[in-house]
Amino acid sequence: MDFTVEFQPLGLRIQCDQDINALDAARQAGIQMMAVCGGEGTCGKCVIQILESKQLQQPTPTEIKHLSPQQLDAGFRLACMTTLTADTKLYIPASSIIEDQIMQTEGDAVQQELHPAIKQTTIILNKAYLKDLTSDFSRVKNAMVDPSLHANLDTIRRIPPILRENDWTVNLITRGNRVINVTRKKIETPLGLAVDVGSTKIACYLIDLDSGKVITAKGTPNPQIAYGEDIMARLAFAIQNRENAEKLHTLTMDAISLIASDMCRRINREVHEIMDFCLVGNTAMHHLFLNLPADSLAVSPFVPVMTDPLYPSANTLHLSAMPGAGVYAPPVKAGFIGSDHLAFLYATGFGKDNKIRLGIDIGTNTEIALQANGHIVSVSTASGPAFEGAHIAFGMRAAPGAIEHVTIDEDGKTIIDVIGGQKAIGVCGSGILDAVAQLRARGLLNHRGRFVKDRPCIQIDENGKPLFALSDGSQPVTLSQEDIDQILLAKGAIRAGIDVLMDHLQIKPNQVEEVVIAGAFGSYMLPEHAMGIGMLPTLPLDRMRIVGNAAGTGAQMMLISTNARQEAETLAEKIEYLELTVYPEFPIFYANGIRA
Amino acid sequence: MDFTVEFQPLGLRIQCDQDINALDAARQAGIQMMAVCGGEGTCGKCVIQILESKQLQQPTPTEIKHLSPQQLDAGFRLACMTTLTADTKLYIPASSIIEDQIMQTEGDAVQQELHPAIKQTTIILNKAYLKDLTSDFSRVKNAMVDPSLHANLDTIRRIPPILRENDWTVNLITRGNRVINVTRKKIETPLGLAVDVGSTKIACYLIDLDSGKVITAKGTPNPQIAYGEDIMARLAFAIQNRENAEKLHTLTMDAISLIASDMCRRINREVHEIMDFCLVGNTAMHHLFLNLPADSLAVSPFVPVMTDPLYPSANTLHLSAMPGAGVYAPPVKAGFIGSDHLAFLYATGFGKDNKIRLGIDIGTNTEIALQANGHIVSVSTASGPAFEGAHIAFGMRAAPGAIEHVTIDEDGKTIIDVIGGQKAIGVCGSGILDAVAQLRARGLLNHRGRFVKDRPCIQIDENGKPLFALSDGSQPVTLSQEDIDQILLAKGAIRAGIDVLMDHLQIKPNQVEEVVIAGAFGSYMLPEHAMGIGMLPTLPLDRMRIVGNAAGTGAQMMLISTNARQEAETLAEKIEYLELTVYPEFPIFYANGIRA
Repeated sequence: MDFTVEFQPLGLRIQCDQDINALDAARQAGIQMMAVCGGEGTCGKCVIQILESKQLQQPTPTEIKHLSPQQLDAGFRLACMTTLTADTKLYIPASSIIEDQIMQTEGDAVQQELHPAIKQTTIILNKAYLKDLTSDFSRVKNAMVDPSLHANLDTIRRIPPILRENDWTVNLITRGNRVINVTRKKIETPLGLAVDVGSTKIACYLIDLDSGKVITAKGTPNPQIAYGEDIMARLAFAIQNRENAEKLHTLTMDAISLIASDMCRRINREVHEIMDFCLVGNTAMHHLFLNLPADSLAVSPFVPVMTDPLYPSANTLHLSAMPGAGVYAPPVKAGFIGSDHLAFLYATGFGKDNKIRLGIDIGTNTEIALQANGHIVSVSTASGPAFEGAHIAFGMRAAPGAIEHVTIDEDGKTIIDVIGGQKAIGVCGSGILDAVAQLRARGLLNHRGRFVKDRPCIQIDENGKPLFALSDGSQPVTLSQEDIDQILLAKGAIRAGIDVLMDHLQIKPNQVEEVVIAGAFGSYMLPEHAMGIGMLPTLPLDRMRIVGNAAGTGAQMMLISTNARQEAETLAEKIEYLELTVYPEFPIFYANGIRA
Repeated sequence: MDFTVEFQPLGLRIQCDQDINALDAARQAGIQMMAVCGGEGTCGKCVIQILESKQLQQPTPTEIKHLSPQQLDAGFRLACMTTLTADTKLYIPASSIIEDQIMQTEGDAVQQELHPAIKQTTIILNKAYLKDLTSDFSRVKNAMVDPSLHANLDTIRRIPPILRENDWTVNLITRGNRVINVTRKKIETPLGLAVDVGSTKIACYLIDLDSGKVITAKGTPNPQIAYGEDIMARLAFAIQNRENAEKLHTLTMDAISLIASDMCRRINREVHEIMDFCLVGNTAMHHLFLNLPADSLAVSPFVPVMTDPLYPSANTLHLSAMPGAGVYAPPVKAGFIGSDHLAFLYATGFGKDNKIRLGIDIGTNTEIALQANGHIVSVSTASGPAFEGAHIAFGMRAAPGAIEHVTIDEDGKTIIDVIGGQKAIGVCGSGILDAVAQLRARGLLNHRGRFVKDRPCIQIDENGKPLFALSDGSQPVTLSQEDIDQILLAKGAIRAGIDVLMDHLQIKPNQVEEVVIAGAFGSYMLPEHAMGIGMLPTLPLDRMRIVGNAAGTGAQMMLISTNARQEAETLAEKIEYLELTVYPEFPIFYANGIRA
């Protein structure tokens, strides 16, 4: 009973051999749909339109609640409520794709006014003749009424043939007073690329620089993973010799070029039409994508080579692009506070108001910022990869077969949600978080994070060690004491960072007006469970804001606006970096943080 | 009787098989010695020191006049008065080498104050530690107290290893607020290269940027000659396709790199230590050395692509140089008024005073400028290659065997000076000029430039055409009516240019306070003979100033001084280009000019 699901307008297809939830089908096709609630039908964001299907389901009560009768009649449904059983053609509105999340869903200040760095001007010149011997370039400068206009030799070389073959008409592509390229006529829908180079995933956003809109967005695994799962392993590889560093640089740039080519091809454009780039990443990624020596990032005191914003040409970075295209690399702050953190803070309103705001971007390193009392202070804490499923016996990334949510009843019985609705094969970050919160709530873990062995639902393995089964069956998914320890260390590191910041700026938890949570794990995690295990201080849920890949949004904002670049650079200067390891009370906060 | 002549400090040697004049020996070795008088013993510039010789000549009366007894005792002689007959080791003082001519011989304003574009600063930084996490580059900026300091990625990449291997000490090489390179310690005697890219010869001057002094100078034939003797032929080749243009570009740059390598090797340095360049040339050379499309220079209205000053990196021009080294390419004015003309005018004081001054740079194209009444107006005139010996039956460049000076007595008998003192095999520009002036003075040419056939010294060839023998013997050197015509056309073109300028600015010949004559031919020509044939208006000889390769001097001045660059750019804006072909009276002046 094989069938095909086709996704428009992206033109992607997947082949299915059994019934599948539409949200999971989209994930399988590589489309990251909005699912703030984790697919529970409560957020109503994962709207799709069924274009062609042999059997259109009757709307569920949840769908009737979230969608209008007109929408329902037109075939709109919620992806998480829809089970696909036969050939289907779906339409996914841009507002349902996760990469657009903040720009589309948040009304406050993340809508970015357009001030593109790149401008186009088509000019018609008077032809040269014996009584007007002005040079080609001076003729261009006069038409632009800008005596400071300049260009590099490559660009100047392209002007004379265009003028003489195109009836003395030329389209100038300029950045400030610099002509970066010339074409015969104005390029409609000029393309830019915003990129968030994550350690795990590279997220690319192809943008129409004339409207500021995302045309298409796509993520790809960071190919550096082959040289080390975590940043430190990759840095260790990179600093062995210059060739290794070049290899990581080249791999990253090639991956971006490849994904950009693919996105351009989908809209019948060429990667060589991309005119402008904005690349953000943590400081290690930043140094690797700029091919800066990363040696100093690998050893204490973890000092960056360069923190200033940089504007290299795409060409010098070996990125496929229009000749003359430039790359904006926003500033980084410290060895573990990169331009992705800056982009996250900028996109979520830091520095624009005086709200007491906590920003948390959860990853292998978790960056945390607190805005309060006229300060913005950032820390980075080594939370480790437990929330990404690493170092956990049955850990896995959020992918089909992963337990993403867990409830434990009073008898110690589990109710689980598995991604893809299939048999559980592992547990991802949000499931682990849920499990620990529920184990603690049900008294199955004590306050030191030890299993309470005399409870019947706590199993004992062949080595006499306690074990808790999240799912049973022939291949049960279980959590060991070691797994619990990893989780507690991770959440403890995050909580200690938060506590140090609040202590440093003399803020009490209940004074925090907003907690902004970013990152792939952060997008799936339930804040109440994060509070339940003490990862976050206990606060009303309405102060929590889940923002997905806010760093990507920040990169998009800086791509389309020189004002945003300026504001972000001002923000970068304002951010104070606090080195946790030299904060006197850090050990105490950490010891408290890791308690269950 | 083979013997060797060795030249110090250059370390050059030549092998001789017969007695040789020391000035000619130097020329054979490729050393262009000062010989303003043409080797007649009157200027006293070609000073040499005999270091080792089997027989040291007694000083001649001419040498006793020009040199002190102490100098004579120490072995100093005039090269033009010295005949070498056996193994000799000579020392040539820098002041006797022609490339230094103007800087050494002219006291007025060509001495250039140093304001090098490139500076070096050695800084010692505080080592990074956990309580001072400033990035490497910010640390550099702080030490330089310049927040605007910046650098490209290549340069930034070189900083961290130097800091960490060199005890946090680094030497910055900066241009303005841009770090162009970093080294472990200050480079003593920083090197710069000034280049005059002539159509025939490329003259290179290796300069100590710390003192502004010429270390060594060397010329090489322009290898483009293989693709056309004159500029138009080369442009015709270049515009056939992009590959041809690239080839001319590459040939030129390789020739400069080769000569620069050679000069560096002589002083135990590397070509990759050259930090800064200034390249001048006529507009065709300028476009070819910058690899700009030259198509528009090949056809009327001969419009340049770019007239603005340019600052490409040496790297983009494929010049061997220090990484980060830049090239200063001063502005050009028009299709036939290049940056060599600007450099010539700048070096000879145009724009710095209000003297009524005529500047003439004689070549295949002769550029002429007149400064008067607050204006500086330039013209270019196609004087052709006759003065370089081309299109003349026995014409040759100024090389051994060339008749360089001619006197004709009342009986039509000739007295000739031959370069190298050997048998005459041809005649060079200055000899041709002399011959025509003397033929006219002795009434052997009429006012229309025709040979007066009934004079006994006018021979008639087998075709019945008149002929004048400059030298007799088995292989006489003769001048035909066609040769005379070529000379008259050339001098007529120059005179017409001068007359148009004087007419345009309403200046009478005797108002001209100074006539500055540059170019290889101009350096050897006797001004009285140039006036004799009407190439120049008749003026007192003391208003004539022969300046040799003044364009090379201008290039040196701009290399060592950003002030000079600024002043030259201001001068370029002041220069008014006059297109001769649209000047209404030009045909009349030209018709007058070509009369004998």
